[in-house]
Amino acid sequence: MDMSKKNDTTESLAPQAVSAQFSEHVVEQRLTPNPLNPFSMDKDTLRLALVTAQFALRATRQQTPPTINKPTGLLVLVNGMEQAGKGTAVTQLRQWVDPRLLKVEATIGDCPLKHQPIWQVHTKSMPRHGDVMVYFGNWYADLLYNVMRMATLKSENKEAGKNKNSSDKNKKSKNKKSVDVKKLPITEWQDYLQEELTKLQAFEQDLAANQTKLLKCWFHVDIETLQARLNDAEVDPKFLYQIDWHNAAVVAQFNEVATALLRQQGDWIIIDGKDKSQAATLFCHEVLRAMQTALASSRIEESKQVNPVINFDPVKIPKILIDINDTDIDKSEYHEALADKQARLAELLRARKGRHVVFAFEGMDAAGKGGAIKRLVAPLDPREYQIYNIGAPMLYELQHPYLWRFWTKLPDEQTDRISRIAIFDRTWYGRVLVERIEGFATDEEWQRAYDEINRFEADLVAAGNIVIKYWLAIDKKEQLKRFEAREETPHKQFKLTDDDWRNRDQWSDYVQSAADMLARTHTEDAPWCVIATNGKQQARLDVLDHAIQQLSSALSKSE
Amino acid sequence: MDMSKKNDTTESLAPQAVSAQFSEHVVEQRLTPNPLNPFSMDKDTLRLALVTAQFALRATRQQTPPTINKPTGLLVLVNGMEQAGKGTAVTQLRQWVDPRLLKVEATIGDCPLKHQPIWQVHTKSMPRHGDVMVYFGNWYADLLYNVMRMATLKSENKEAGKNKNSSDKNKKSKNKKSVDVKKLPITEWQDYLQEELTKLQAFEQDLAANQTKLLKCWFHVDIETLQARLNDAEVDPKFLYQIDWHNAAVVAQFNEVATALLRQQGDWIIIDGKDKSQAATLFCHEVLRAMQTALASSRIEESKQVNPVINFDPVKIPKILIDINDTDIDKSEYHEALADKQARLAELLRARKGRHVVFAFEGMDAAGKGGAIKRLVAPLDPREYQIYNIGAPMLYELQHPYLWRFWTKLPDEQTDRISRIAIFDRTWYGRVLVERIEGFATDEEWQRAYDEINRFEADLVAAGNIVIKYWLAIDKKEQLKRFEAREETPHKQFKLTDDDWRNRDQWSDYVQSAADMLARTHTEDAPWCVIATNGKQQARLDVLDHAIQQLSSALSKSE
Repeated sequence: MDMSKKNDTTESLAPQAVSAQFSEHVVEQRLTPNPLNPFSMDKDTLRLALVTAQFALRATRQQTPPTINKPTGLLVLVNGMEQAGKGTAVTQLRQWVDPRLLKVEATIGDCPLKHQPIWQVHTKSMPRHGDVMVYFGNWYADLLYNVMRMATLKSENKEAGKNKNSSDKNKKSKNKKSVDVKKLPITEWQDYLQEELTKLQAFEQDLAANQTKLLKCWFHVDIETLQARLNDAEVDPKFLYQIDWHNAAVVAQFNEVATALLRQQGDWIIIDGKDKSQAATLFCHEVLRAMQTALASSRIEESKQVNPVINFDPVKIPKILIDINDTDIDKSEYHEALADKQARLAELLRARKGRHVVFAFEGMDAAGKGGAIKRLVAPLDPREYQIYNIGAPMLYELQHPYLWRFWTKLPDEQTDRISRIAIFDRTWYGRVLVERIEGFATDEEWQRAYDEINRFEADLVAAGNIVIKYWLAIDKKEQLKRFEAREETPHKQFKLTDDDWRNRDQWSDYVQSAADMLARTHTEDAPWCVIATNGKQQARLDVLDHAIQQLSSALSKSE
Repeated sequence: MDMSKKNDTTESLAPQAVSAQFSEHVVEQRLTPNPLNPFSMDKDTLRLALVTAQFALRATRQQTPPTINKPTGLLVLVNGMEQAGKGTAVTQLRQWVDPRLLKVEATIGDCPLKHQPIWQVHTKSMPRHGDVMVYFGNWYADLLYNVMRMATLKSENKEAGKNKNSSDKNKKSKNKKSVDVKKLPITEWQDYLQEELTKLQAFEQDLAANQTKLLKCWFHVDIETLQARLNDAEVDPKFLYQIDWHNAAVVAQFNEVATALLRQQGDWIIIDGKDKSQAATLFCHEVLRAMQTALASSRIEESKQVNPVINFDPVKIPKILIDINDTDIDKSEYHEALADKQARLAELLRARKGRHVVFAFEGMDAAGKGGAIKRLVAPLDPREYQIYNIGAPMLYELQHPYLWRFWTKLPDEQTDRISRIAIFDRTWYGRVLVERIEGFATDEEWQRAYDEINRFEADLVAAGNIVIKYWLAIDKKEQLKRFEAREETPHKQFKLTDDDWRNRDQWSDYVQSAADMLARTHTEDAPWCVIATNGKQQARLDVLDHAIQQLSSALSKSE
């Protein structure tokens, strides 16, 4: 399995040495002590075990309410080299399981879309809990496509790019990496790869914690086998990661990148595709094990439910949430200021150079979210933005990680040709507000959510999104006044529901949850803005002011 | 409102005359007797009425079960000229209704995707029942983009294109119209427009019949106003339909196309955008009226439920559905034939030049759908196809026309980069099978469905899809044998559910429904293939044979 044999290039950074390390340290280490060998099953046993596990997994979503297992899905990431037996392996799996219950998706890698995390576009292809999905390519294909472009340019520009002095400039150009690849210095791909791998691994951990379990399979073959198979007539002309697998230098470069990837991420199962049939059997064993592990780890343990371990320390309620200023601005002054600020905001939004903007509105019922959003969008073209009115999740949304329904609503370059501003009226913070208070999320789940949400927002900001978050605060007396006013105003009656009155009874729980949320998710990337809304008009101006300030600051940083 | 004044072009086919007709006959006729004028409301009354209707529409989806109104949505199509006040009108609407409950989508028109009906890509943007969605551009933008390309080429090629002899050749090139536009003869755009408009209108009627009501608003302005607004500094550089609105000849050509469109489709509300504010008010009135009409037409009338009018004539059960041949093929002969046919099928599928293939499998429980599908896909790469296992619709699917969940699963060039074969294990025919038998669809609904399904499949085929449909027939004795075998075989136990036994009790209902379905939906475009499956192995070969035959025939036609 000496992949470096045909490496007759001297251009790239000693690929022989690295490939040798790949083969010796990484591959051998994980291939030799194959944990499945001792349990290796004959074909019929394996097949029965696969079907059994598949239906057991499916059954996890059919319990109402879930009593034995949490509803759980399995996402199988299939990556690695071209011509390494991936198709054969998945064909074999599909023959042995019920093919109708196995979803298969595939991409070959493409330029990651601007202004969005690499994983974002792929969240549309996620298994529902209860399903198994094999996803060829997935986010790693996009990452590898990008890294290979950088690394290949690197070899070409080797002489020109020896200066390592411009690390500051790189920071700025990162958001545009897909277009400005040539400007990156030669050592950049390693840093970029490492950084993206860290983010993706965190993303995957959050998937797994939220019942979309993962199995990551990396297929590889030695270069002789690869070349032999490429010479075969039936090869598809569209190559994985869109690189030229006929070119030994490119393959060597790929192996160098792959080595770096596999060194950093220890959770890949490496499958040698030289013998396609053996590789397929090994793959099926791994999928079986992953299904069984997913089932075992999703069992609902009664002991845990009876004695929940709570190490959660609620914060002291800050004054800003309870001591609300009642003064409001004079009406004519308000209208003048409103027009000014709306014009300024519209100007900034139009100057944002394609960056996506995400507004998050949270707050007590009747605190004026609707009114604030109305003033925010008034100067915009209706085609520029989407407003998402977030309520209780639907069943199919519950069959995914709780953030999934937000991932799939983010501005998306691929499908939203025009609208790239998303306004969320109630948000992912429902996890640590209503779901915490009503018990829809377990203690462990909502307590874990602060970090998950921070990672989610950090990924958005790192990709170039501008995230603007509001908590609209009101006091209990003022809320009552507004509820009563709603009951009396014909075109506002629809705004008041029984839920609003019920939430009001839990006023102090909401204030405590808001305080904990603010303390734990007020980050540099995505700071909260708490707005006192007893004075309605002043509050609307404050909302605009904060948006103007956040946009100015974000846009000046990216200049 | 003389749009022809600035038409100094003499190239195109007398645009002055046509535009004048547009203004005189079509516009005036519909603008002058504005039915809303007599009822015109002041701003506050209109606003309250809008919010009231909006919430009443929303309430239609919140009844469980529906008792007063069928859950109903409203899709507002906004089309017409560039700079005609569309944005202002929708901004106004959004200010007057609850903006959080109003969805807005927009496209500017693009080349329709190959091998799919123009409406297909837009089905992803459809309002749920209970919602109102404004959709700028929509399918008409794609159609107008295409027609304008043809019409513009036509003017340029006027001299060269005078031969009208090649109507046969056109038929063939229609599926490739987006790439081969130059080959079309000069009179072609009218025929193409007319044909597509007919299909789209039928599609829209099916939407409306299935509770996605439509309002179609066409905005236009005279050419002076257009030019003045285009000279305004803030104009977006991305023009509607991607045509050059600065060019008077192009605008004249557009008006000619628009005239043809508005003449053929009488259901457009034409709004004069010269005074943007008046246009906005008129638009809001029209939306209000459309919401009210949607509500009124979705009322569930008790009398209808008590005395259903049935004019449905069940057909005589054909022998092929009940008199099932029991003989099967010899095992070794089967394996040889299977391998041959699979190879031939794979060969044909790979020679299909990007055309999408849709397989539809229906049949009695245990008739062998799963086994047949398994043999069908065995020779394919797992990335080439998707299998959809269709069960009871989920809630969000029920909040759309019943075909919606199939529209959104069709092979899609925009999102499926590789897989363009869709295999449906149970299909849209559920409407006239299980939904008929279990009463999930009313008599009126399932009886109407035959035509709707025929239109759906005809549109697919017209766009270049190859649609292959199977009914797998089995007799009642053989089914019992298989049910019992499933109970005894470990890896088949999962296949047998209580539903299967329950369906068995309704055997004769299913046979009658199948007979009616076959009689009414066996079309030239998408014929049924009934396969006797008592002999399992012979049945699998027959499935392959029919696929081979259909593919060969479709591919030879397109040569």
